[in-house]
Amino acid sequence: MNLLDETVSGIGRLDNAVMDKVQKRLDNLTKPQGSLGRLEELAKHIAGITGQESPTLKHKIIFTLVGDHGVTEEGVSAYPKKVTPQMVYNFLRGGAGINVLAKQMGARVVIVDMGVCEKLQVSGYKLQDNKTVFKDCKINLGTSNFTKGPAMSREEAIKSIEAGIKLVEEEISNGLNIVGTGDMGIGNTTPSSAITAVFTDCKVEDVTGYGTGINESGWAKKVESINKGIVLNKPDSSDPVDVLAKVGGYEIGGIAGVILGAARHRIPVVIDGFISGAGALIAVGLAPQAKDFIIASHCSQERGHKYALAHMDLKPLLDLNLRLGEGTGAALAMSLCESAVRILNEMATFGEASVSEKKKEE
Amino acid sequence: MNLLDETVSGIGRLDNAVMDKVQKRLDNLTKPQGSLGRLEELAKHIAGITGQESPTLKHKIIFTLVGDHGVTEEGVSAYPKKVTPQMVYNFLRGGAGINVLAKQMGARVVIVDMGVCEKLQVSGYKLQDNKTVFKDCKINLGTSNFTKGPAMSREEAIKSIEAGIKLVEEEISNGLNIVGTGDMGIGNTTPSSAITAVFTDCKVEDVTGYGTGINESGWAKKVESINKGIVLNKPDSSDPVDVLAKVGGYEIGGIAGVILGAARHRIPVVIDGFISGAGALIAVGLAPQAKDFIIASHCSQERGHKYALAHMDLKPLLDLNLRLGEGTGAALAMSLCESAVRILNEMATFGEASVSEKKKEE
Repeated sequence: MNLLDETVSGIGRLDNAVMDKVQKRLDNLTKPQGSLGRLEELAKHIAGITGQESPTLKHKIIFTLVGDHGVTEEGVSAYPKKVTPQMVYNFLRGGAGINVLAKQMGARVVIVDMGVCEKLQVSGYKLQDNKTVFKDCKINLGTSNFTKGPAMSREEAIKSIEAGIKLVEEEISNGLNIVGTGDMGIGNTTPSSAITAVFTDCKVEDVTGYGTGINESGWAKKVESINKGIVLNKPDSSDPVDVLAKVGGYEIGGIAGVILGAARHRIPVVIDGFISGAGALIAVGLAPQAKDFIIASHCSQERGHKYALAHMDLKPLLDLNLRLGEGTGAALAMSLCESAVRILNEMATFGEASVSEKKKEE
Repeated sequence: MNLLDETVSGIGRLDNAVMDKVQKRLDNLTKPQGSLGRLEELAKHIAGITGQESPTLKHKIIFTLVGDHGVTEEGVSAYPKKVTPQMVYNFLRGGAGINVLAKQMGARVVIVDMGVCEKLQVSGYKLQDNKTVFKDCKINLGTSNFTKGPAMSREEAIKSIEAGIKLVEEEISNGLNIVGTGDMGIGNTTPSSAITAVFTDCKVEDVTGYGTGINESGWAKKVESINKGIVLNKPDSSDPVDVLAKVGGYEIGGIAGVILGAARHRIPVVIDGFISGAGALIAVGLAPQAKDFIIASHCSQERGHKYALAHMDLKPLLDLNLRLGEGTGAALAMSLCESAVRILNEMATFGEASVSEKKKEE
């Protein structure tokens, strides 16, 4: 069996016995029952994922996967393509949003070249804090323009997902308690909208937003390109690898793999915004049970994201009009995951604190 | 002039010049303009409050104000009154929700007895980490039952607000960059609903929730008690001190004072949930310009809170079905404030990172 099939078939279920025990403890902490709302649900969810009554989130990683997109030839992005490699260097110098937020949350950042359009020269970068590392998983120099044919071959699609699975597996020995997904790649809201349209059956215009900030005529070109790509390539929604190959991207496949790898190893995976949502659609398409291991960090301002989340029945924790990507929303939500676990592990119970319980109802 | 009047008249305006400079910097950081959504707005807001282009939030304090309520005689709460002092001891041992979350955020917790119904014996508590301190500002042994007369005298109402102002002023010399408000007090959603009804003109039943978890008959008694208190005492919404005296609570007055004191000294004040919202209604009633210095942390599950926030035109950052109080929501939102400020201070600009800017629009 190949790594992808092995991973998909190895994904288990939430541990209900542990979740029941954790619910009892939460109900016995010195607070009205349920009064910490979604933090309590999150604590229980993380316990169910990890199978641990007192989970720890000491080792946190954000995987920021980077790729380029042939469809940018169609003028679908507000920024030139060369920004993708430039941003990789910015990540490696610690100057990007994800560096700042991951540092705050005590998370390492793993920057992964999944398919940047040029050969990167990263050897010169000395990272100040060893908190950001670079990995070369380059599959190709950007995808092909999907308005003219498939974005990538089926083999490349599988390779990109398996690269994501391996990213998780390689980090487990270094300690890994929670994973965040992130992305960078000029043009990547375009394949994400295409993937979202294919899986949710929404109209392309309903799931296509302004990305990094295109104008109305750019938006019209984007919608047209996506429609063209779907009509030409006929992605099959019952075959997620086919969808990824025909209208996806290398970093999106990688994100799908990170999600599957994390689920396989019972590690909570906090997904970022729209591009991570597209990766999740691929992952959950391949392994519906992977959904239980996903924590949706936020609802992106990019209009297709809410449809992707609803399709997977995922309820985001935050709604802050974010649309940067990189894993920034995932980093913010990791702080909430940390809060949830600390509440579970560190609060006193009524008995320990000698606090009286609720009155019997009359 | 007394301290309250002095404070109210000393509250200034947001620093627009600094906010303009900060907006320029935010627009020049290596991300699409506005793509960090509310984090960017928050950074600008904090800059406008503090008057600093690169604000720091190093010194954080959550003030958790505690008081008891005579109206609990009417059976409006699910927990016995003795839980109030018991929870103070829990705070001082570090076992409550606010201790856990404040520790995560690097915030000190100042527990303040504003009017607990018994004399507290706190001398025996050695705090492990010096992160939690106790202050005695007791005004009385709980308020009077407002279904039988005013909750407190006008003098006590002013004293409670001024105690809150002094709490902030006393901590400034220790370093204080951001303040969170919190509350504890069995029965205190009842006066908070009364205050919310008076200021927002909503019906009492629309702003009265289940507090710590009463049943339907308890809820009906609660609504009846609030209506009775309002009809009997006739609180005057154009005179916030009158509202506080007639249907309020000592910790609610204290929270109003913390907000006014923070606003006076240009310190961002993150308000917690429903009880802090009632305190904010008093503060903003006294000093409408104080509103600009408030950051609304979250929308409580307690049903009146959204009306209070809307009345003050405050937009909460989080919506996590919280209803614990203590300052727990404020602590969570402080993490977002920290994120906002770090983005502003630590991200690289396009120029610094040699990243290409947006294409000129055609």
